Amino acid sequence: MSKVLIIGCGGVASVAIHKCCQVSDVFTEICIASRTKSKCDKLAAKLAPTTSTKITTAQVNADNTDEVIALIRSYQPELVMNIALPYQDLTIMDACLACGVNYMDTANYEPEDTDDPAWRRIYEARCEKEGFSAYFDYSWQWAYREKFEQAGLTALLGSGFDPGVTQAYCAYAAKHEFDQIDTIDILDCNGGDHSYPFATNFNPEINLREVSAPGSYWENGHWVEIPAMSIKREYDFDQVGHKDMYLLHHEEIESLAQNIPGVRRIRFFMTFGQSYLDHMRCLENVGMLSTTPILFEGKEIVPIQFLKALLPDPATLGPRTKGKTNIGCIFTGKKDGKDKTYYIYNICDHEACYKEVGSQAVSYTTGVPAMCGALMLLTGKWNKPGVYTVEEFDPDPYLDALDKYGLPRSESHAPVLVD
Amino acid sequence: MSKVLIIGCGGVASVAIHKCCQVSDVFTEICIASRTKSKCDKLAAKLAPTTSTKITTAQVNADNTDEVIALIRSYQPELVMNIALPYQDLTIMDACLACGVNYMDTANYEPEDTDDPAWRRIYEARCEKEGFSAYFDYSWQWAYREKFEQAGLTALLGSGFDPGVTQAYCAYAAKHEFDQIDTIDILDCNGGDHSYPFATNFNPEINLREVSAPGSYWENGHWVEIPAMSIKREYDFDQVGHKDMYLLHHEEIESLAQNIPGVRRIRFFMTFGQSYLDHMRCLENVGMLSTTPILFEGKEIVPIQFLKALLPDPATLGPRTKGKTNIGCIFTGKKDGKDKTYYIYNICDHEACYKEVGSQAVSYTTGVPAMCGALMLLTGKWNKPGVYTVEEFDPDPYLDALDKYGLPRSESHAPVLVD
Repeated sequence: MSKVLIIGCGGVASVAIHKCCQVSDVFTEICIASRTKSKCDKLAAKLAPTTSTKITTAQVNADNTDEVIALIRSYQPELVMNIALPYQDLTIMDACLACGVNYMDTANYEPEDTDDPAWRRIYEARCEKEGFSAYFDYSWQWAYREKFEQAGLTALLGSGFDPGVTQAYCAYAAKHEFDQIDTIDILDCNGGDHSYPFATNFNPEINLREVSAPGSYWENGHWVEIPAMSIKREYDFDQVGHKDMYLLHHEEIESLAQNIPGVRRIRFFMTFGQSYLDHMRCLENVGMLSTTPILFEGKEIVPIQFLKALLPDPATLGPRTKGKTNIGCIFTGKKDGKDKTYYIYNICDHEACYKEVGSQAVSYTTGVPAMCGALMLLTGKWNKPGVYTVEEFDPDPYLDALDKYGLPRSESHAPVLVD
Repeated sequence: MSKVLIIGCGGVASVAIHKCCQVSDVFTEICIASRTKSKCDKLAAKLAPTTSTKITTAQVNADNTDEVIALIRSYQPELVMNIALPYQDLTIMDACLACGVNYMDTANYEPEDTDDPAWRRIYEARCEKEGFSAYFDYSWQWAYREKFEQAGLTALLGSGFDPGVTQAYCAYAAKHEFDQIDTIDILDCNGGDHSYPFATNFNPEINLREVSAPGSYWENGHWVEIPAMSIKREYDFDQVGHKDMYLLHHEEIESLAQNIPGVRRIRFFMTFGQSYLDHMRCLENVGMLSTTPILFEGKEIVPIQFLKALLPDPATLGPRTKGKTNIGCIFTGKKDGKDKTYYIYNICDHEACYKEVGSQAVSYTTGVPAMCGALMLLTGKWNKPGVYTVEEFDPDPYLDALDKYGLPRSESHAPVLVD
């Protein structure tokens, strides 16, 4: 018997909401709130006939803490699920503290305006101190630890797939499979094919940032930063096949380095097709990915905005994407004094996802863990005061829930390792 | 002692005019005419201190035969050099006939509006009859043969490099090197590097047409058409090195097939770098090469026009282009009953051209043959009434002039052949 406020109504939120409505005995009432209330109303109207969860909707600008506070006070939820943009993590956490409500999200904070001089000073100091240059990091949200502890509230950070499930996989490996984990390789493979020569799953600006940012990995107690896309490996993914993958910085490495005792190395690899990379490079070369407006026929036009208008709407990719995702973690370490390897992963089919919830696997693999994280908080399995990432909780009930609600684990005790 | 009217003041025309001014004893007076008189004035002002050629300028819209007639009547030239766009070949030929003046150009006629239904009907009938689908062909200008013959006037078609010099190379090989030419491969290599990741020498729309049009070659008395860019070869060009080249349709094949008796096969290859092709393909894939406007923020924008605004101005390429062009013809055939091979070509250095005339080799290799063609007509070496392509005249004085004025020939009697 729980009331949950869900902020966000995009692709991932839509999957999470679909899933909450499949678990009506826990999610008895939900309120869907976003900047555009009509989107929430549309989704509510679609789901209402299929569920006994009571759905209401609301308009909220999550950049404004006072607006979020007012909404929480009026709706009186037990938990706020933040499935909007990561730019709003802090304003929503503030609102939860003000109202005495638990909090969760799917991705860690980063500022919307990375050119803001005040922010940049802090960012540059962090780059210097920590040794990696990604815009996102946990410092902003970890700064809330004491406040949440003192308020007796739980904040669960990053319950998507990666971050999220990948950290639960690590906690699971540490609990059941190893006495000591030496190395972790997180492999994120999207074998989906939408049959367009080029299209992006979401904002091309975010896609660009992903492939143009330096990579980094954790080794022997510190970060090693490498030029963008400079470490490439090929891997033969179960049910997907051979794919090129590239070492990227990824947020869960930061918390895992602290929470997996004695881990020697943690890396993150993501697959990118050559054609995708070629298009990104060519578009960047001609200036089409620039965010600086140019004057064209008397009008200021931002090239990347014009490109967005030319590209297929990401929303149209869902119904035409075939193939599977395969995301998981490969471990090496010791058990009972012997060397051991272990691979735990999930395979998710784009078409099956679309059939079930109207979104393909990229949204599905984030939205289902969001619901499962909320489920852990609402059923009292993961409640402890403070700010935590997924690997700091018992992975067993979470992985059981994922098995049950659409993201079942696969395992190998003799995986091919990554060089 | 000649008066010449030069129509056009773009990159190629500028080179031709520079060169005419180096041969003031023949080009005693020239009038430079174009749509934008200020461009002509600027060039005239630059050249006047360096030459004894008397330069005047005029404004003319060459699409309008009456305007061209009025200009010819007022200036009274012996020859009109058409170095404007090939769209205007016919209007200028009409004006020359009306005024009794010789004519020459550098590229054969094609219509500006290839969507015009009247033109398309004729075009489609020609595709069917001839077996190649390029927009340009000689039929439009060959239709003027009788009129020029009866008027006692000469029209010299296509005195650039290719078409132009390549045909003189063929005539030279037929005259001096072979009793029978079996095969001709025309190789057009641009080894220039402007150090931009991507830029086009001229209109990207024309570049696109080049790489997306079907290729065709002449074999055993008929055209063989192939999918765009489907025949690729590598060749090691003298002073340039290894380059990929692709079989294209090219206009001089059409006249050479008629004028080189017994020739079994004629092909044309042009070099394209992989990076250039990748950019063209990626830009085409995302719709950036489309000529159809899209509605963007309330304004109709043509993607390829927006791309043009982003790309480096072709005029800025000249001063930064390094490297050489290498264009020529490889022949196989028989001489004195024996098999024989022969390669005649020109090497042209981008930087040297820029230093001499302020244009790089792509314009230089077209502009110099334009002047040399005019020189042949004005000195009486190539005068016969009718409409002719370069290989129908004695190649010797033309190649001597090219040697002298900046495009010297190189030769090999043991060239590597193209498969």
